[in-house]
Amino acid sequence: MDVRTESDSLGTKQIGSHHYYGIQTQRAVENFSITDIPLSIDPEMVIALAMVKKACALTNCDLGVLPKEKTDAIVAACDEIIAGKHHQEFVVDVIQGGAGTSANMNANEVIANRALEIMGYSKGHYQHLHPNNDVNASQSTNDVYPSALRLALYNKSQDLISALEELVDAFGVKAEAFKDVYKIGRTQLQDAVPMTLGMEFGAFATAIAEDIVQIKHTAHLLLDTNLGATAIGTGINTPKGYSTKVIEHLREVSGVQVRSAENLIEATWDTGDFVQLSGTLKRYATKISKICNDLRLLSSGPLCGLGEINLPKMQPGSSIMPGKVNPVIPEVMNQIAYDVIGKDVTVSMASEGGQMQLNAFEPVIANCLFLSLGMLTRGSRILREKCIQGITANREKCEEYLDKSVGIVTALNPILGYEVTSALAQEAVAEGKSIKKLVIEKQLLPAEQVDALLQSAMGQ
Amino acid sequence: MDVRTESDSLGTKQIGSHHYYGIQTQRAVENFSITDIPLSIDPEMVIALAMVKKACALTNCDLGVLPKEKTDAIVAACDEIIAGKHHQEFVVDVIQGGAGTSANMNANEVIANRALEIMGYSKGHYQHLHPNNDVNASQSTNDVYPSALRLALYNKSQDLISALEELVDAFGVKAEAFKDVYKIGRTQLQDAVPMTLGMEFGAFATAIAEDIVQIKHTAHLLLDTNLGATAIGTGINTPKGYSTKVIEHLREVSGVQVRSAENLIEATWDTGDFVQLSGTLKRYATKISKICNDLRLLSSGPLCGLGEINLPKMQPGSSIMPGKVNPVIPEVMNQIAYDVIGKDVTVSMASEGGQMQLNAFEPVIANCLFLSLGMLTRGSRILREKCIQGITANREKCEEYLDKSVGIVTALNPILGYEVTSALAQEAVAEGKSIKKLVIEKQLLPAEQVDALLQSAMGQ
Amino acid sequence: MDVRTESDSLGTKQIGSHHYYGIQTQRAVENFSITDIPLSIDPEMVIALAMVKKACALTNCDLGVLPKEKTDAIVAACDEIIAGKHHQEFVVDVIQGGAGTSANMNANEVIANRALEIMGYSKGHYQHLHPNNDVNASQSTNDVYPSALRLALYNKSQDLISALEELVDAFGVKAEAFKDVYKIGRTQLQDAVPMTLGMEFGAFATAIAEDIVQIKHTAHLLLDTNLGATAIGTGINTPKGYSTKVIEHLREVSGVQVRSAENLIEATWDTGDFVQLSGTLKRYATKISKICNDLRLLSSGPLCGLGEINLPKMQPGSSIMPGKVNPVIPEVMNQIAYDVIGKDVTVSMASEGGQMQLNAFEPVIANCLFLSLGMLTRGSRILREKCIQGITANREKCEEYLDKSVGIVTALNPILGYEVTSALAQEAVAEGKSIKKLVIEKQLLPAEQVDALLQSAMGQ
Amino acid sequence: MDVRTESDSLGTKQIGSHHYYGIQTQRAVENFSITDIPLSIDPEMVIALAMVKKACALTNCDLGVLPKEKTDAIVAACDEIIAGKHHQEFVVDVIQGGAGTSANMNANEVIANRALEIMGYSKGHYQHLHPNNDVNASQSTNDVYPSALRLALYNKSQDLISALEELVDAFGVKAEAFKDVYKIGRTQLQDAVPMTLGMEFGAFATAIAEDIVQIKHTAHLLLDTNLGATAIGTGINTPKGYSTKVIEHLREVSGVQVRSAENLIEATWDTGDFVQLSGTLKRYATKISKICNDLRLLSSGPLCGLGEINLPKMQPGSSIMPGKVNPVIPEVMNQIAYDVIGKDVTVSMASEGGQMQLNAFEPVIANCLFLSLGMLTRGSRILREKCIQGITANREKCEEYLDKSVGIVTALNPILGYEVTSALAQEAVAEGKSIKKLVIEKQLLPAEQVDALLQSAMGQ
Repeated sequence: MDVRTESDSLGTKQIGSHHYYGIQTQRAVENFSITDIPLSIDPEMVIALAMVKKACALTNCDLGVLPKEKTDAIVAACDEIIAGKHHQEFVVDVIQGGAGTSANMNANEVIANRALEIMGYSKGHYQHLHPNNDVNASQSTNDVYPSALRLALYNKSQDLISALEELVDAFGVKAEAFKDVYKIGRTQLQDAVPMTLGMEFGAFATAIAEDIVQIKHTAHLLLDTNLGATAIGTGINTPKGYSTKVIEHLREVSGVQVRSAENLIEATWDTGDFVQLSGTLKRYATKISKICNDLRLLSSGPLCGLGEINLPKMQPGSSIMPGKVNPVIPEVMNQIAYDVIGKDVTVSMASEGGQMQLNAFEPVIANCLFLSLGMLTRGSRILREKCIQGITANREKCEEYLDKSVGIVTALNPILGYEVTSALAQEAVAEGKSIKKLVIEKQLLPAEQVDALLQSAMGQ
Repeated sequence: MDVRTESDSLGTKQIGSHHYYGIQTQRAVENFSITDIPLSIDPEMVIALAMVKKACALTNCDLGVLPKEKTDAIVAACDEIIAGKHHQEFVVDVIQGGAGTSANMNANEVIANRALEIMGYSKGHYQHLHPNNDVNASQSTNDVYPSALRLALYNKSQDLISALEELVDAFGVKAEAFKDVYKIGRTQLQDAVPMTLGMEFGAFATAIAEDIVQIKHTAHLLLDTNLGATAIGTGINTPKGYSTKVIEHLREVSGVQVRSAENLIEATWDTGDFVQLSGTLKRYATKISKICNDLRLLSSGPLCGLGEINLPKMQPGSSIMPGKVNPVIPEVMNQIAYDVIGKDVTVSMASEGGQMQLNAFEPVIANCLFLSLGMLTRGSRILREKCIQGITANREKCEEYLDKSVGIVTALNPILGYEVTSALAQEAVAEGKSIKKLVIEKQLLPAEQVDALLQSAMGQ
Repeated sequence: MDVRTESDSLGTKQIGSHHYYGIQTQRAVENFSITDIPLSIDPEMVIALAMVKKACALTNCDLGVLPKEKTDAIVAACDEIIAGKHHQEFVVDVIQGGAGTSANMNANEVIANRALEIMGYSKGHYQHLHPNNDVNASQSTNDVYPSALRLALYNKSQDLISALEELVDAFGVKAEAFKDVYKIGRTQLQDAVPMTLGMEFGAFATAIAEDIVQIKHTAHLLLDTNLGATAIGTGINTPKGYSTKVIEHLREVSGVQVRSAENLIEATWDTGDFVQLSGTLKRYATKISKICNDLRLLSSGPLCGLGEINLPKMQPGSSIMPGKVNPVIPEVMNQIAYDVIGKDVTVSMASEGGQMQLNAFEPVIANCLFLSLGMLTRGSRILREKCIQGITANREKCEEYLDKSVGIVTALNPILGYEVTSALAQEAVAEGKSIKKLVIEKQLLPAEQVDALLQSAMGQ
Repeated sequence: MDVRTESDSLGTKQIGSHHYYGIQTQRAVENFSITDIPLSIDPEMVIALAMVKKACALTNCDLGVLPKEKTDAIVAACDEIIAGKHHQEFVVDVIQGGAGTSANMNANEVIANRALEIMGYSKGHYQHLHPNNDVNASQSTNDVYPSALRLALYNKSQDLISALEELVDAFGVKAEAFKDVYKIGRTQLQDAVPMTLGMEFGAFATAIAEDIVQIKHTAHLLLDTNLGATAIGTGINTPKGYSTKVIEHLREVSGVQVRSAENLIEATWDTGDFVQLSGTLKRYATKISKICNDLRLLSSGPLCGLGEINLPKMQPGSSIMPGKVNPVIPEVMNQIAYDVIGKDVTVSMASEGGQMQLNAFEPVIANCLFLSLGMLTRGSRILREKCIQGITANREKCEEYLDKSVGIVTALNPILGYEVTSALAQEAVAEGKSIKKLVIEKQLLPAEQVDALLQSAMGQ
């Protein structure tokens, strides 16, 4: 293999000549073989790092820290990464020690070497453009890494939000389609009072719509960045005016309205917004898992369960039982939810474990949040396309249950009185007759009035 | 013991004559001996139940469901409970099956029996005023319990918010007091660059202030109630106009701007806001635990640790080691934080476990949230009074560390260049000399300029 | 109030004359108003503390550290506590800073003052018998507290084990009673193949029986104590031979075969066995919660659910719906399980948070474990008495489902072949006919052979 | 692309001709794009599936279910997979709905198609050898998947155990090397009493050694398999004698002493052993995280921290601060621990969520356990090689602290009495003098006796 030799304060290493990354990345790869999943798995993060580096370079140029030639080369290299190139050179493990220094140095080295090429030099000739002195000028991992992470999470959140908006619409379509499917409502798995299947699906839509509002609220918090804080928030080694200007550049580069955090010392160690993002994703996870539980219950059967709805058949369900089809799509969403709820604990512990002026455990927080966002987004899309959109109602089954349930008795309470209705309820269960039939048999009320009470019992 | 006999659909029971609660409460007490901690442990909840019952009675009267005499008696009974009376009659275990029905019936029975007395009847003579037919008229556990719970949690949150505002102030006072205590900042427990102790405490203030904003945001969500939804959200057995009017009455009774939830079907089973409240409390818990960890690290010693600050001595620390004093107040706050983070998992599971039109597990959610709110509020007040307010700085120790640290070398980078500073850093550690001394010894820079750089390195 | 004045290295305090506790307890009460639940809530812990103190006193006497007179008085005071007296004097909050020092000093002070009385002196006259010098002689909180905690948890575990053994028996009785109730088995909430209700309940018995084995295994680990380790495990301030002899005494005093941990340094900070106990309780919690979920599903209805079994009716289920009865006992067990699973996270965090030679967070670990053990024990007893023992089967419903299910088709596979059975399954669902009927109609097999295959399909 | 067409009960699909997997795998790939990580990421699982399939084929042959020719081909195909071939054909997402059916069918299809080739037929010509009828004969996903999973987890656990044994040895080597490095012990981050650095590292060794015992205990539980249970544990569609014989074959094929579970109904849904494995891994996670926290504390500095030990320098620590080196290896282990603790919550929820005769959520349990085992194993090896083995002691620093600490005063208690030692402690802290110096200055004890007491204070 063709190699070049690089050195740092701990010694020298040989790097494959074709690699844009350098010695510090190489060390990190050797140190952190933990998940064997590289940074490039999260393109949003790679792109956000490049956007931050570009904004810093432009600011350094404005303030006389970087000459135009170097700036242009760095900007060009960053633009290539933003456009999706060189991502395979972001090789550091997603779980790494060092508070993100390896991720930052991976970016510094890739950008520096690509910029050197653009300037007409060979990779590794850092005397012309240096990963630390130039690409990382006026920066520290401690402001670059969290700023890029927040930007990447904000952008990835938008994708989840759009998946959830589509999901809300899909539930809404079913709410409309099922608005005249009357059925028995159930509380504590026991027969309660009448409702429509449309109401049931409409509630699913509302529940997710409320989650969207909270995800948007939390994503907005991520726009506060500590860029300009450098090492611990004092802004050491930044030129005057840097922290304001770099935010302006980052807004333009990213197209996102990032803001400067109020207290840079605090913003450099604080991970509260990550905890809140994780908690908000967990809110949605508990909700969608509950909804999937309901879908599985309502479609249980086909003959020995509730059987009120049919889920689309996605795959044969059993290697042994002919004809069996299982609710595999809701089941996978349940599992995603459990995973997200577990990751919320990891995020909490990593957040709690930060010490003094920095949280060294941001990489595991980042990994959890990227995975949770990604799985929830993909899972929600799959749920919509492969399940919700194809759900049909078993109107006869719904009607049959409603007909034999005694829950309707509640609606007769104000007319017939508590004693009469209690007796009716007991007789209905014991004899296996429907309340409606009993009321008509006993000529207590005419059929039309029972129907009218049923309607009104459902708020319609 | 003097008793009266009550009956329900399952049979009869004897109740102590002096008790305002009745047969259904008695059954619940027998069924749920789980924690042996009664509902009355949370006075906010007992009061909120009474407020809801009062608002419902007034609405029922307005709409012709309840006659004035019964209404007046119910209202009078509720007012007594709101004023703090009869709380010892709320005896159902805080963890109970049945989705809160026992808590609701406990309220219905206490109010009915007290109202009976007010009307001049004996307890148990429900033919004159009935727990279900009158006190619970136009209501179901399924709207009363979550509505009261949300109101109670909202009110209890206000107390936490005020405790946190006091804590922010206390940190702010120290930030001001320590603004000229120069010290070394640390990242990853390794010496970094200079800052002031004031900045460190100022960051604590900012961090908590940000949590307050999020707690307020989440508490506001709790104001959406499903009162009027009755059994499953269809409003079965409520008179026309009820759901709007009852909210107006509840606003007046509680003094809190409650609102009607947009979708009552959804609002009857949804527990998303509880999950979010728990998640937001957890956000604060991770933050305050991190801060307490820092306080314990900074005060470690007294002679063989960092020793930069002194915590007030609260109690002898050891049964065997003379003179040892431990950071017991931060330690108890850490434990509260761990407890709150664990309870967040419980809340998530209980939320996920809800089925169909109701979440049967709201009692354990309620218990976790009341405990978390209570412990965080008390703990935060104790932390402020018994720890933060009495913290003093060891200026000499801070100065000594800063003097011997090599972190200041970072600030000299732009003047002396990376090669010179790297060599200085190595020599300083190897020889045990301070950077400042070395720079002056070697006549690289005059002492005043080093001091100026140090100042500017701290952003001042 | 009649008071006495006590002093320690931080000053003086007035204590109510009737109190056996002293100044350090008083300070702790003032410092830790966190849960307002006192140590005495866990009588096992109070008794275990007294047992440890008694064993230490006897050992100190054997080795010449304590004179006989003092020893006798201490032993007599401890015996009173072991017999259940003076527990109300253990007033320190269950969640406290200081690694248990306040709990240990609470014990030292109560024992010292009661011993003083026994010796004929007044409380507080510590010159005759001192809480630290005498009651705590050759001890530190760091060995006394975890040793007492382990002993108390071991003892409390035995109660859980016996509750679970009774529960296994109750499930076994139902397994026998339902052994000829044929029904359809379900996987993924979809109809699968035949089984008996007895098998279903037998599996519940086996599942809990396996948990018992693991709880016993883990409880056994708690018998390793670090008594004799004193401050950090070096045994500082213990006389020669102490650590062996004190274990012998503790065995005799407690009737439990405690052992000395192999490495006292490690045993003084290690909390692995607590984490494992919590994890094992969580194992049972997930299992019993799954079983309760099944019980609620199987009893869902009464008319619009699965309705295969009936749970005993424990209380009216609704404040609004006449005749509704809910599965309140399984529901409360679910909530206990969620609580235990949450507490496991708290225990894990507290364990992870220990530093250097001690884990300062053992009080919150202790509180979680006592609560989890207590709730699981009480909940399991309630579940057995108020639910399992009274369960009846709906044989007709079970038979009806089995009759109409197509799952039996799996059993015909080897005789009729996959193509024929697949076609049968499809026809059965589409036509709403049972496989059995179709097979007989089409004269594919005689009725007796179908029955025989059904039997054999259930492994009988 | 060259394709073949396959069909199942839901229709037809085109499969790339070179693929061994078939239509059901293809459907699963389309349904479950959740993590985009294929089953093949866990070679232990792929191999275990092949071992189970081989054992089943051999048993089917013995009992006349499969002819010799088919059996030989299946066995040959399985042997290739066991030898590491065709793993890239196991493409189903690690998180999938359907309780593992897709994983089982992936195995059935790959084995069937490879066996067809071995028999001289083309892929997809299932009339000669069928994925369900032949490869899956006498099996169901419900016994195959958990049996393979248990075997795979058992095998993967052995690798963790060996990594931990090496780690224990590494700590033991340091314990020996540091046995004469005297230092101050610390509790609650406050100076306590003397010990040696060797004791501190010896305790780390003991702690991990105890975890190994518990991991072995739990791994042993995994040897109980439900092979032969088929669909729900009744053994439907297995020939007489199958369940005993298949275990014998699996023992031989795997070289592992698997056993048949006592109750196959229970063993088919129960996930208790997975919960326990996860809990035991979490036990180790909390322990190693605590140890890494200690290593980071003890090596804090280099100049403004405790600085008692030096960790090997693995990489430059800062992109901005020259010369800074961070404890990146312990930091990455902390993050692994947080991840494992979070995954334990996921496993608990997935376990609790199982219903009736099967747990549909085993795939996410499997994924969590494989990830936790893998990360802990790799992380522990990295910790040993890149951190523990290279640790050196700062003897002077340890001595300096010990010299100035007042903790030694505890050891003088029995000789000089509590009053004198308390006064000495106060004077020492106030004057900044060491106890040893004060005692000698005041001629209270000769230097040799102080040294002797110090020695004995450390249990030596």
